[in-house]
Amino acid sequence: LGSGNMLPVRRALHALNPAEIASLLASLPPTERNLVWEMVSPEDDGEVLLHLPESIRTGLIRQMDTAELIKAAEELEIDDLADLLEGLPETVTREVLRALDADDRARLEQVLAYEPDTAGGLMNTDTVTVRPDVSLDVVQRYLRLRGEVPTHTDALYVVDRYGAYLGALPLDKILTRAADDLVANVMERETPAIPAGEKEHDVARRFESADLVSAPVVDGKGILVGRITVDDVVDVIRAEGEHNMMSMAGLAEDEDLFAPVRQAALRRGIWLGINLMTAFAAAWVVGRFEATIGEVVALAVLMPVVASMGGIGGSQTLTLMIRSLALGQAGVGNTRLLLRKELSVAAVNGLLWSIVVGAIAAWWFSSLWLALVIALALVVNQVIAAASGVLIPLILKRMGVDPALAGSVVLTTVTDVVGFFALLGLGTVILL
Amino acid sequence: LGSGNMLPVRRALHALNPAEIASLLASLPPTERNLVWEMVSPEDDGEVLLHLPESIRTGLIRQMDTAELIKAAEELEIDDLADLLEGLPETVTREVLRALDADDRARLEQVLAYEPDTAGGLMNTDTVTVRPDVSLDVVQRYLRLRGEVPTHTDALYVVDRYGAYLGALPLDKILTRAADDLVANVMERETPAIPAGEKEHDVARRFESADLVSAPVVDGKGILVGRITVDDVVDVIRAEGEHNMMSMAGLAEDEDLFAPVRQAALRRGIWLGINLMTAFAAAWVVGRFEATIGEVVALAVLMPVVASMGGIGGSQTLTLMIRSLALGQAGVGNTRLLLRKELSVAAVNGLLWSIVVGAIAAWWFSSLWLALVIALALVVNQVIAAASGVLIPLILKRMGVDPALAGSVVLTTVTDVVGFFALLGLGTVILL
Repeated sequence: LGSGNMLPVRRALHALNPAEIASLLASLPPTERNLVWEMVSPEDDGEVLLHLPESIRTGLIRQMDTAELIKAAEELEIDDLADLLEGLPETVTREVLRALDADDRARLEQVLAYEPDTAGGLMNTDTVTVRPDVSLDVVQRYLRLRGEVPTHTDALYVVDRYGAYLGALPLDKILTRAADDLVANVMERETPAIPAGEKEHDVARRFESADLVSAPVVDGKGILVGRITVDDVVDVIRAEGEHNMMSMAGLAEDEDLFAPVRQAALRRGIWLGINLMTAFAAAWVVGRFEATIGEVVALAVLMPVVASMGGIGGSQTLTLMIRSLALGQAGVGNTRLLLRKELSVAAVNGLLWSIVVGAIAAWWFSSLWLALVIALALVVNQVIAAASGVLIPLILKRMGVDPALAGSVVLTTVTDVVGFFALLGLGTVILL
Repeated sequence: LGSGNMLPVRRALHALNPAEIASLLASLPPTERNLVWEMVSPEDDGEVLLHLPESIRTGLIRQMDTAELIKAAEELEIDDLADLLEGLPETVTREVLRALDADDRARLEQVLAYEPDTAGGLMNTDTVTVRPDVSLDVVQRYLRLRGEVPTHTDALYVVDRYGAYLGALPLDKILTRAADDLVANVMERETPAIPAGEKEHDVARRFESADLVSAPVVDGKGILVGRITVDDVVDVIRAEGEHNMMSMAGLAEDEDLFAPVRQAALRRGIWLGINLMTAFAAAWVVGRFEATIGEVVALAVLMPVVASMGGIGGSQTLTLMIRSLALGQAGVGNTRLLLRKELSVAAVNGLLWSIVVGAIAAWWFSSLWLALVIALALVVNQVIAAASGVLIPLILKRMGVDPALAGSVVLTTVTDVVGFFALLGLGTVILL
């Protein structure tokens, strides 16, 4: 790419699918990214944009003129187009809407009317519907006439004449059942319809637990409004998995590997600033014991040990809790039991490692009293860390704050403050 | 549950699907879990076991007698059964194999022959195949005769008379194309077959990037051996998402919320022990400067600030790298560019926050020299932390060590050691 010879790049791009091109773009710094982006063929533009995280997408869209954007938009399915439009300035959105035919516009507006993180925002409106009172033979002839069905159609949906959802008619049923069977006798009534307002997290859990490929979406009156296909759900699951991990480090889940330095520095700088407050809280506690440290410098030497052991122990409990909360397996119902278990684990490990740490301290500083101080501080901090790991995410969740985002800062503050207070406080009482 | 009245529990269980029952079991402590498990109806046993993480599954299986296990096994699909058998003692596996009919046994043995984390281990053998030289009409009559197809069949596979894979025949093509069209003219030749030895991680990326619902699996000679469906891929994606997050805290990705205390304490204790070594490395550095701390106790007070800011900054880079490595977007090719970007971000934030921290230190301890020391130490530590965040995961990966598991320990060691060394070293030079 550096050599300025673009022909091999162009050729290589042709061999990649949109998702692979998106992954390539994400791995490039801005200048090279823009160069490669201009070489992507226009009919792939829309799909590639969709596969990119929003942070990168916005940057590329800013370079495109409206005509290119409309061209890219035309190649997309309605649900994907809706996703794309959410990131665009309103003037462009209006122009794209105007460029669509009336049918598509109406369908797009329907999807845009729902929140993007709900079943309605996730759905596509390209359902193929049949009536319950026709035979499979008629359905088959209708499909032959139609010539094709939308991608990922694994079932037709059966609706009454008002459009109310009655059941699903899987394609394999049409193929395997007798031709004169009525749709009403063959359709699966137990396939549940998803309310359009359901959160995408719950939609994903539903797909996972029932192994669905697609599912019908209905409005408040039971009218079929669209369907959700598993490929969109896979994206939700992937994003959820990354959300927790990235949030715990104060990063956006779609953080661009090559975000402009100013943008990246700003976003992470805020996180560092928040953490600075917790660090100074810990420093303040240490400051209360300046006199003690001046007399027993060994306490300062052992400070990192108590703080880091508490941080690690607490993080383990916290991470387990955040995962379990996301899966709906931890909650108010089993808090007491969880607390008992985590406290037991912390007590066992606290006692075990306090013996080891105490022994090392006794040998290093030739002081049994010092060994006693650090051993006690370690046990206290492990136990408090475990309790915090269970309770902090539950409290944050009740306050409507994402435990994955705020949990680790709050926890670290607690373990640092408690650790230093225990070590230096006990040191003051026992050693001075 | 506590009241001993089991009827309402039994009724509630009947309303849940196997995945929901599994989630319920995972949220219960061992005693209650065993009680509820006994109430699950035997025909659901297999499915429920499959939806449980291995750590819990093994415990429940230990309670079942062989007859129950065989009954549970019989209800499962071949690929799921293979997953289940991997956790069972060999005597039971042999008995289950004996209980199957010859056909199923042969198919099961075929799946078991592949590593569980490959396409072969993930696949199901229930493909429906057709020949290329018949008409769609013949296919349709064959399907009617068959009466049903395996779940998640969205395509039949076209093979030659040796069983070699030729292409896919999606069900909707059979329904929408003319009845006298030949399979050879309708089938999709571009649907790629997955080699049985391909790693499940790559299989998942393939499904995600091409939005697949199912895909054919072939052996080394191109013979069709099975198919992978999206529901199994969803499990892989979910597990991968959790793996990174859980590993970074030293937890197993399927850590049981209510693992027995002894087991949980042991596994986490090992992690605490590993971290203890890094904590003592940091303590050792501090110990080298005992004399300095004795004279300028304020340095001990500020130690937590430098260490925690370095840890946070480094974690942000590390987390971004671990995610990007998993997605294949970071690697040797763009290391230098990544390093430059992360170092720039760290330098900007290091300078910015060093001014804030320096100002606070100057005010707190009324010493401009001390402010200079902590400001310099902070910048040095931020920059080294960013470099470590980029390089440590790359080096670990090259060494064949999972960056998500070992990355944070190594990083914390570096940021603690460098942070304390910079602060106390500069303090010794400048302040004494």
